[in-house]
Amino acid sequence: MTDLSSMEAIRAACRELPEGDRNAARAAAGRQNMLTKPPGSLGRLEDLAVFLAEWQGRERPALDRVDILVFAGAHGVVAQGVSAYPAEVTAQMVANFAAGGAAINQLAKVAGARLNVTSLEVDKPTGDFTRKPAMPEAEFLDAVRKGYRAVPQDTHLVCLGEMGIGNTTSAAAMAAALFGGTGADWVGRGTGVDDAGLRRKAEAVDAALALHRAALADPLSALRLVGGRELAAMFGAALAARRNRIPVLLDGFVSTAAVAPLGRLHPEGLSHARAAHVSAEAAHGKLLSALGLKPLLDLGMRLGEGSGAAVAISILRAAVACHNGMATFAEAGVSSA
Amino acid sequence: MTDLSSMEAIRAACRELPEGDRNAARAAAGRQNMLTKPPGSLGRLEDLAVFLAEWQGRERPALDRVDILVFAGAHGVVAQGVSAYPAEVTAQMVANFAAGGAAINQLAKVAGARLNVTSLEVDKPTGDFTRKPAMPEAEFLDAVRKGYRAVPQDTHLVCLGEMGIGNTTSAAAMAAALFGGTGADWVGRGTGVDDAGLRRKAEAVDAALALHRAALADPLSALRLVGGRELAAMFGAALAARRNRIPVLLDGFVSTAAVAPLGRLHPEGLSHARAAHVSAEAAHGKLLSALGLKPLLDLGMRLGEGSGAAVAISILRAAVACHNGMATFAEAGVSSA
Repeated sequence: MTDLSSMEAIRAACRELPEGDRNAARAAAGRQNMLTKPPGSLGRLEDLAVFLAEWQGRERPALDRVDILVFAGAHGVVAQGVSAYPAEVTAQMVANFAAGGAAINQLAKVAGARLNVTSLEVDKPTGDFTRKPAMPEAEFLDAVRKGYRAVPQDTHLVCLGEMGIGNTTSAAAMAAALFGGTGADWVGRGTGVDDAGLRRKAEAVDAALALHRAALADPLSALRLVGGRELAAMFGAALAARRNRIPVLLDGFVSTAAVAPLGRLHPEGLSHARAAHVSAEAAHGKLLSALGLKPLLDLGMRLGEGSGAAVAISILRAAVACHNGMATFAEAGVSSA
Repeated sequence: MTDLSSMEAIRAACRELPEGDRNAARAAAGRQNMLTKPPGSLGRLEDLAVFLAEWQGRERPALDRVDILVFAGAHGVVAQGVSAYPAEVTAQMVANFAAGGAAINQLAKVAGARLNVTSLEVDKPTGDFTRKPAMPEAEFLDAVRKGYRAVPQDTHLVCLGEMGIGNTTSAAAMAAALFGGTGADWVGRGTGVDDAGLRRKAEAVDAALALHRAALADPLSALRLVGGRELAAMFGAALAARRNRIPVLLDGFVSTAAVAPLGRLHPEGLSHARAAHVSAEAAHGKLLSALGLKPLLDLGMRLGEGSGAAVAISILRAAVACHNGMATFAEAGVSSA
């Protein structure tokens, strides 16, 4: 396993990321142009097939094993009145995941994916980042490592999702820390706060930016200071996927904010990831643009749990089915243009 | 079966369309608000579950049987040099469908749908509508009836697709006939024509509008005069689905243009249909807007064959899985807001 024993070790790991397999990508693109369809007519399905080929290192990618990793964490900033739901819902929803009753359980099943939920001390909130660091260094490193270890080496695709009452405030603070702006630029209604709650979210982000300003220029420190355990774990999982050249589907605003430091620590740090969707949380679209990611779906979803990523798995399955299963013009005896 | 023996009989059938089941829709919407998620947080997946409930007449809709109906037709207007591909590709692709080598074969399989291809005399092109009617009345009625009969009464969802070299020119003529504008407003590159081909497409549409102007005010006559057999059949299939209260997924520009007369002959004529995607053909987005349809997907696809609709089936499956399978707040013991 990669050395993740210190902040500096993680930064070093992020500087030395493997690239995708250019030869496999080239072969896949060549195959696309021989299939019985006008070139380019499958649109983004063609790009997705080539993307999967590049990261799986094979001309014909597979999606036999797909893993949805959901990380749950509790947030001290909930004390600032930033959520429409009480803090105990995080643990209740973890129980709902275990019982099979949540949206992500149904979506994983219908997408033919394995669901793996990692609960990160949901009964022990992180520090309230308006007053102190969200996590001490040891706690942050532990969460990163848990995320890293959650990625199976033999999977064909990893989807990253989360559950954590209060974590859109954390994501907004991350976005502001990494891309500038104030709380008002990055907060939204999350699970459904009212106007007063929205103001409290913006104030909490502004307070965090003021308190931690000196350290926020470093993306990894920002993740420790204003992130949360589930965000740290998603970052770790994205890093593990990259080190093992496994393609990644991001979910919503929180999962995108969590992996954003990888895109800041390395210019191509997120090239193994695709944005499954853009959520109804307005800041998500802004953050995706800032990271150069174009979402596959825009269905007005804002649930988290990896739900948007789970829905997008079927788009990738469609891409792979066409890529691997279609006849070429020569095979089918169809005239080309 | 509905009387489809004359133009007037079809118009009469289109004036007497059944509505959806409001009670089932209301019950489904009520259920959505009890499921373990913030209200509205599944976005359009929630609307889709309610839509399917309304048209299937049950609080918990099913997608056990899904049918993709693909209609193929040959177009006399190809003589005007409007396509990047030779006319014989239509028949070659029908053979490719039968052999299982086309995109739609793979997409149907991965979506768990049945594929049913109806070839409408693909070796006998319709009339070149720049010079005469595309179809005499008897031929048009026959195509509408073939489409009507292709819809299984016991299916849970019908997807409408097509294959026909030259048919984006036909669709552009239909759009102009129904919603105004000139050829240049509605033509696009289709399978990939060059600039000269694009000009020829616009000229062909303008010639058709001038030749048939007196009769184009009637949407059904427009479909006969500038449509094609596969468009007439898709119209018939959409009518059959509506008469049997079966929900419909539309595919691209051609399938949308084909069913557009139903939306013109009855103010709620397309309320049982959803637009699966918006294609790369620019006029498709314009036509969807004109019909008040909001596409589910925007993946830059422009293949036809029902391919966009087939990809969107999985979005509906996700919607149904969540709607039917999720626990309520009460069942899961989760606190609500």
